[in-house]
Amino acid sequence: MNRIFRVNMKDLTCKIEDVPEAWAGLGGRGLTSTIVAAEVPPTCHPLGPNNKLVFAPGLLTGTPAAQSGRMSAGAKSPLTGGIKESNAGGTSAQQFAKLGIKAMIIEDKPEAGKWYELHVNNDGVTFHDASALKGLQNFDVIAKMEEKYSPKIGVCSIGIPGEERLMAANISVKDPDHKIRSHGRGGLGAVMGSKGIKCMTIDDSEGKRVEIADKDKFRAAAKVFAKAMLDHPVTGEGLPIYGTNVLINILNEAGGLPTKNFMYGSCEHHDKVSGETMHDIISSRGGHTKHGCHAGCIIQCSQVYVDENKEYITSGFEYETVWGLGINCMIESLDDCARIDNAMDNIGIDSIEGAVLIAVAMEAGVIPWGDGKETLRVMNEEIGKATPLGRILGNGTASVGHAYGLTRVPVVKGQGIPAYDPRSVKGIGITYATSTMGADHTAGYSIATNILQVGGHVDPLKKEGQVELSRNLSIATAAVDSTGMCIFIAFPALDIPECLPALIDMINARYGISLTGDDVVELGKYILKTEKAFNDAAGFTKADDRLPEFFEYEPVPPHNAVWDFTPEEIDEFWNF
Amino acid sequence: MNRIFRVNMKDLTCKIEDVPEAWAGLGGRGLTSTIVAAEVPPTCHPLGPNNKLVFAPGLLTGTPAAQSGRMSAGAKSPLTGGIKESNAGGTSAQQFAKLGIKAMIIEDKPEAGKWYELHVNNDGVTFHDASALKGLQNFDVIAKMEEKYSPKIGVCSIGIPGEERLMAANISVKDPDHKIRSHGRGGLGAVMGSKGIKCMTIDDSEGKRVEIADKDKFRAAAKVFAKAMLDHPVTGEGLPIYGTNVLINILNEAGGLPTKNFMYGSCEHHDKVSGETMHDIISSRGGHTKHGCHAGCIIQCSQVYVDENKEYITSGFEYETVWGLGINCMIESLDDCARIDNAMDNIGIDSIEGAVLIAVAMEAGVIPWGDGKETLRVMNEEIGKATPLGRILGNGTASVGHAYGLTRVPVVKGQGIPAYDPRSVKGIGITYATSTMGADHTAGYSIATNILQVGGHVDPLKKEGQVELSRNLSIATAAVDSTGMCIFIAFPALDIPECLPALIDMINARYGISLTGDDVVELGKYILKTEKAFNDAAGFTKADDRLPEFFEYEPVPPHNAVWDFTPEEIDEFWNF
Repeated sequence: MNRIFRVNMKDLTCKIEDVPEAWAGLGGRGLTSTIVAAEVPPTCHPLGPNNKLVFAPGLLTGTPAAQSGRMSAGAKSPLTGGIKESNAGGTSAQQFAKLGIKAMIIEDKPEAGKWYELHVNNDGVTFHDASALKGLQNFDVIAKMEEKYSPKIGVCSIGIPGEERLMAANISVKDPDHKIRSHGRGGLGAVMGSKGIKCMTIDDSEGKRVEIADKDKFRAAAKVFAKAMLDHPVTGEGLPIYGTNVLINILNEAGGLPTKNFMYGSCEHHDKVSGETMHDIISSRGGHTKHGCHAGCIIQCSQVYVDENKEYITSGFEYETVWGLGINCMIESLDDCARIDNAMDNIGIDSIEGAVLIAVAMEAGVIPWGDGKETLRVMNEEIGKATPLGRILGNGTASVGHAYGLTRVPVVKGQGIPAYDPRSVKGIGITYATSTMGADHTAGYSIATNILQVGGHVDPLKKEGQVELSRNLSIATAAVDSTGMCIFIAFPALDIPECLPALIDMINARYGISLTGDDVVELGKYILKTEKAFNDAAGFTKADDRLPEFFEYEPVPPHNAVWDFTPEEIDEFWNF
Repeated sequence: MNRIFRVNMKDLTCKIEDVPEAWAGLGGRGLTSTIVAAEVPPTCHPLGPNNKLVFAPGLLTGTPAAQSGRMSAGAKSPLTGGIKESNAGGTSAQQFAKLGIKAMIIEDKPEAGKWYELHVNNDGVTFHDASALKGLQNFDVIAKMEEKYSPKIGVCSIGIPGEERLMAANISVKDPDHKIRSHGRGGLGAVMGSKGIKCMTIDDSEGKRVEIADKDKFRAAAKVFAKAMLDHPVTGEGLPIYGTNVLINILNEAGGLPTKNFMYGSCEHHDKVSGETMHDIISSRGGHTKHGCHAGCIIQCSQVYVDENKEYITSGFEYETVWGLGINCMIESLDDCARIDNAMDNIGIDSIEGAVLIAVAMEAGVIPWGDGKETLRVMNEEIGKATPLGRILGNGTASVGHAYGLTRVPVVKGQGIPAYDPRSVKGIGITYATSTMGADHTAGYSIATNILQVGGHVDPLKKEGQVELSRNLSIATAAVDSTGMCIFIAFPALDIPECLPALIDMINARYGISLTGDDVVELGKYILKTEKAFNDAAGFTKADDRLPEFFEYEPVPPHNAVWDFTPEEIDEFWNF
């Protein structure tokens, strides 16, 4: 990965540049955030010509390292107004790596109304008129591009919400099964739409294997690393069997499962949509309970959810989505939830934002509580077609709250709060409040230690230790997000002593360098500080590192916990 | 004015309190901003229980001083997220003064779905069920309340957009002709709606004349002051004859008349909607070319606009509204513009925000350019009924920009930019950028000196002197906004040496004090700094003191001027 593709959408050119020395040691989030911070004016309009959209595979992407196939996308987010990195599985990261593309930087925008397919191959990028694709949703775009090129073609695309620059729009990435993974959060699909890019196609047929400086060392470390994945109870057992949805029953038990737009912390019908139930349904119908989002995944936490006739409904059906629809929106039918998940893949909106905003719409009276059929209709016919109601909803949770004048609007920095109640799982509340990305559980997944007792235990209901926990996890996550690794490697990394050294050994063997554990921590700190500096320059202050006010005065049963951190306590996060 | 009415909407009580010593010398904006800054948590949700809505007449309101009948309303704004003061004519200010109410502070909120009429009289406030008024627009509310009490009853009310907490919703105030004036900007109608207040009725029959400490001194000063109003060409001639709409031709000539959503700085059809044309239409149809927004006004810049059958269409039909509809939305029929103005009065939305947002909706393709009939329909049937499209629009210009993913969105701090292009009238650009209120021409009306050559002349197209001009005017305006005076007294105050001393003499005579000119300047500075401190604590930074990016890269004809102030130059505003 030794070149930068710099694409200009105004004059439709692609310059192939050498990698600047300062970027050589970076990948994934570390690289996208560095480039956005260096090249995007923090106060620019996120949908204007001065924003840039950056794609970068991780440091280990393209190697045989397990779990290393994720791509980071970065830009100034139209949803949060701050910097954004969103990483996804699928096939594109490994294709980029094979083509030696360390990052692709997309600049400026074309004349309004022009739509392009960016065709990426070993020679650079060519620009194809995509007028005929305008108005298609993602599955059709993938089908058309596979037809145009071959079933092996890589595709990143947006649906109509992305074309219409709605702020919940994601960038969809074709996965190994011709289905969809997503750069979900922060409205990067709207940025892609603002640049007139309907899709990117990737032909890696002339690409090469990623070079590894010390193959023996790499192979040894990769083996240790993979063993750690398989040995840990979460990555070796819980996730492979039940998927991420294993968390429904666990969070319900903990009283941290936000129910009916965060009114309650547990839900009577939790078992109707739990991971255990989902596993039974998929097994009995003949779907797949195991599935990987990218080649080389050995956790296989994904699954293929089918109907009673064994017809595909959805895949990549995550806990956060099931929670959002099944619990927070009170949709008790897992089949309905699965169909809505599929619709969100197809139209191209973030399935977390999509689920959180529907609950707020239900609170506003727009959709009856628990009505899965109407939610599906709203996804396809309103958001998917960008009607006025669809625009209100498709612009995210905060937009719905504004449109209906509500105060119970679970967002931080404009981004919807995911599947863990911050009042009763306080460590995750610190992460939501402080993350440079807006409310984001993956930014510093305190659930590991608060609930799953991975990496020790910090009582989720007490304030003690949460800031430190969230800070340490956030620093580590920023570094992991730079490797191309999936975030679940954190579970073994926290508990199994030889896991993290093996990860560092793989990086060192790949590049012929000698990073230490301290270097990795410094990388994480550098990334967070770079992102925060961007946000500060964009106009963020401490007041943006706060949870919505209603968490302070509305106790959540069963623990009747409130959000009780002082501003000063929260701001301690940044003392590093 | 020696008492504070403190109203609690949760327990439906009104406490009558003494005026704290620190508030004794304050009125109008100085008092509302002081109270909001002291009592409202800056980071609270503007529609939540912790925001407060404050009404305060000016220091001279209730006296015979010309132009002194304006009321300030203040709160944390849902539109800007910062502090808000919006002042209006009408009858309520003088009624409050007669009842001795220095300020009314409305706290907390009732159970959702409950609606109240607050009846204010000499004994305090009583709370009447207003379920029967829910769903009525303003003119019907006024009619019902006049029927219930008497034609003399004072009324402040909200229409359906206010009930629905849309952020362009204003608070409408009955004027001496049973028509409507507005606390227009910043969405204070949404705050009133969030507190379950459909209307406030004011019975001042048991009120008393305002006491004046030194009647002779007051009388002498009032005479000098009134003479200055009549002697100045703007307040004695331009405004009384043509109304504020005299500005259309002037701004067109200056190349500072924003046309077609700020694409151009002058407009071919300007004369179709100019003040001169409007004067001729009103005269020929038998309307009134002169009209005051409150008793005691001697400028009479308002008018009553009638149709060909002499039937009332609208009044208080200001330049900014005519510009917004007639020029910026390209609606060439002044009758159409007048009917839309009336609709905005009736449904209760800010006519500046309303006009600016329609132009953005036209750019989005929602309404054809120049289509007055469709705009009128949209006002009544969409915004007025809070349909999904109506919510997008009724939440203001920024909301429309977000909903349709646009970059040419003329707002500062979320509030629509009014009728003067900041690229070609640079002093007003500094005011838009720096005002604590969001984009607001009245906050520091540089047009006086840039265009009308009042108070000297600063070349509108050059950067030199603009920051100082805007700063001085902003300080003076904050002080004037505390007196209950209309902002137009600034014209004679800037040019006629005896005008400002006479104003200060009136305040001194009223209260038996001895303010100096320096004291008034200090008052203005104190107010701006108090407001800025609130905004900073709410999360505003220098990045919020910026104009939209498109003004920097889109030159506006005919001068092809761009917004070219550096951030550092703008920030000089706050060096005082």
